[in-house]
Amino acid sequence: MGPHPAVAAIRLAVRRVLHDILTELNTTAGVPAATAAERMPERPPSPLVLVACSGGADSMALASALAFEAPRLGVRAGGVTVDHGLQNGSDLRAEEVVLRLRELGLDPVEATAVTVGREGGPEAAARDARYAALDAAAARHGAAAVLLGHTRDDQAETVLLGLARGSGIRSLSGMAAVSGAGGRYRRPFLQVDRQTARKACMVQSLPVWDDPHNADPAYTRSRLRHEGLPALEKALGKGVVEALARTAQLSRDDADALDAWARQAEAGVRDASGVLECAKLYALPPAVRRRILRRAAIDAGAPAGALFARHVEEVDRLITGWRGQGAINLPGRVVARRQGGRLVIRQG
Amino acid sequence: MGPHPAVAAIRLAVRRVLHDILTELNTTAGVPAATAAERMPERPPSPLVLVACSGGADSMALASALAFEAPRLGVRAGGVTVDHGLQNGSDLRAEEVVLRLRELGLDPVEATAVTVGREGGPEAAARDARYAALDAAAARHGAAAVLLGHTRDDQAETVLLGLARGSGIRSLSGMAAVSGAGGRYRRPFLQVDRQTARKACMVQSLPVWDDPHNADPAYTRSRLRHEGLPALEKALGKGVVEALARTAQLSRDDADALDAWARQAEAGVRDASGVLECAKLYALPPAVRRRILRRAAIDAGAPAGALFARHVEEVDRLITGWRGQGAINLPGRVVARRQGGRLVIRQG
Repeated sequence: MGPHPAVAAIRLAVRRVLHDILTELNTTAGVPAATAAERMPERPPSPLVLVACSGGADSMALASALAFEAPRLGVRAGGVTVDHGLQNGSDLRAEEVVLRLRELGLDPVEATAVTVGREGGPEAAARDARYAALDAAAARHGAAAVLLGHTRDDQAETVLLGLARGSGIRSLSGMAAVSGAGGRYRRPFLQVDRQTARKACMVQSLPVWDDPHNADPAYTRSRLRHEGLPALEKALGKGVVEALARTAQLSRDDADALDAWARQAEAGVRDASGVLECAKLYALPPAVRRRILRRAAIDAGAPAGALFARHVEEVDRLITGWRGQGAINLPGRVVARRQGGRLVIRQG
Repeated sequence: MGPHPAVAAIRLAVRRVLHDILTELNTTAGVPAATAAERMPERPPSPLVLVACSGGADSMALASALAFEAPRLGVRAGGVTVDHGLQNGSDLRAEEVVLRLRELGLDPVEATAVTVGREGGPEAAARDARYAALDAAAARHGAAAVLLGHTRDDQAETVLLGLARGSGIRSLSGMAAVSGAGGRYRRPFLQVDRQTARKACMVQSLPVWDDPHNADPAYTRSRLRHEGLPALEKALGKGVVEALARTAQLSRDDADALDAWARQAEAGVRDASGVLECAKLYALPPAVRRRILRRAAIDAGAPAGALFARHVEEVDRLITGWRGQGAINLPGRVVARRQGGRLVIRQG
């Protein structure tokens, strides 16, 4: 008798990702490996993959699947838990997660404490601190990758959060399966639903911890999870989470293709001194032109997070609806103005 | 004292669209107009614009704004109301709408009765019957355009309905401001919210009719309007409707650009006999390649409405993940198979 279907599902998801990581390591090793071998004749150590674990069902399921699959593929499995210090006793909780990860057979395992700032709101500040700690842990242990437990449900929520920004398809593309410097972060569960992860913990008798933040209506994501998304499912049917996750993937591919097009087209719309030419911009499809304008504003110093679609549209009207309008003020003291047939975007 | 801000907003929206229509008529008239003038020396009649009116607040507001703006721009304004025959007394209601439109000064005004079939579900069947009747009315009266009262809220709902299909950014692009053969249908209120339309009716003392279908939870759109969207607003904030409407516009531009790219790239990925070449398809960005594959399946006879993203992904794996898999069955008895380095997609 094989494992429970939920356990089989999470293991398969992790096996695929470990397989990808090994394939990439072998490919990138390539020629330099031979040179390294001359200096270091001993057998290279097997690669280390860390799991980022909060002790919640998603990341505990991920840790259990990593513990099972890693040794079968010649991979060392370790774990990190981040103590955000936002609740009383969070340090004790982190120690408990460390014990549980050790019980699963992971090694090395560590808890790392962070100080959460306030920049960008409580969720963004906690995320920034968490990733900085994970980056440091990965570097400290020389990890080939860090696995994150985001599920298909998390992805659906991320798409809706992006939708609420109304800033286009890049913000609909959710979380990437592979992200971070050198593709360090991997999300094996983006196609696995939260229910499956929870079930896998249950049938493996893994104790899980429900972070009270996840149910706190002060957090946008929590409201979305407990009220917004269920209401949307009630109106639109049970397939909404899957549809949102598929939208993320399709939007990501589309945004990548359009970004590539814009990068390629950009060289052709600048004059000899590098200034944008209005007539050439006008000839491009709006989707490509606006991407070039957005990039030009960011290159001139506009902060990406403060530059909204409406800003870019206003700059675009200097091209498509020219009636002598004045300079457009953009975030970061960047100014866009039309001079003759040229579009000048610069700070100051 | 000028009109109430709500009335000013709906009039401005209609004025802009009438202006566009007149500009286009003058442009397309161009050279042939001179030839026609030789045969018909009399002054050409002023163009007719119809409003499609259910008697609800959105389309009554639209009718009132058209009645006000049209004579100022030398346009004749008429109206059509469609009797779907789905409720007892719908014929009397249609007659009442006709009277109200006449009271606004519209001429010609007519009620047209349709028989709603069952194909594609009740909402799609009613929509198909409605547009067929509006097409016929426009042709009968030689109308230059038909105005539709869809608001920004309707647009937001349409985006969410598209999101639930999970079939990519084209289905997120909502309703177009200009659509139909020759750009017949215009939606002046896509940037106007439902509340403004309702307010404009109120301050103009226009009686409006609330279609009970709009509140009937048997309809997906109605559930979305009364439960899904309010819950989403509660979770994400009041800007959701605007964000969804902006997403529609951005997605439409992006989808248009990618469709254009795919059309252009398609010629380059076929061999001399017109068959798709796998190596050339492989070199394209996934977003462009999948659009070409989707188009090829539709051209081979797969019904667009039954061809889902997962079908196209499976065909795509014949290119990107070739391991000798068999033929892929698609809707409409269309079969995709890899033969040598070629991808053959055909019916039967």
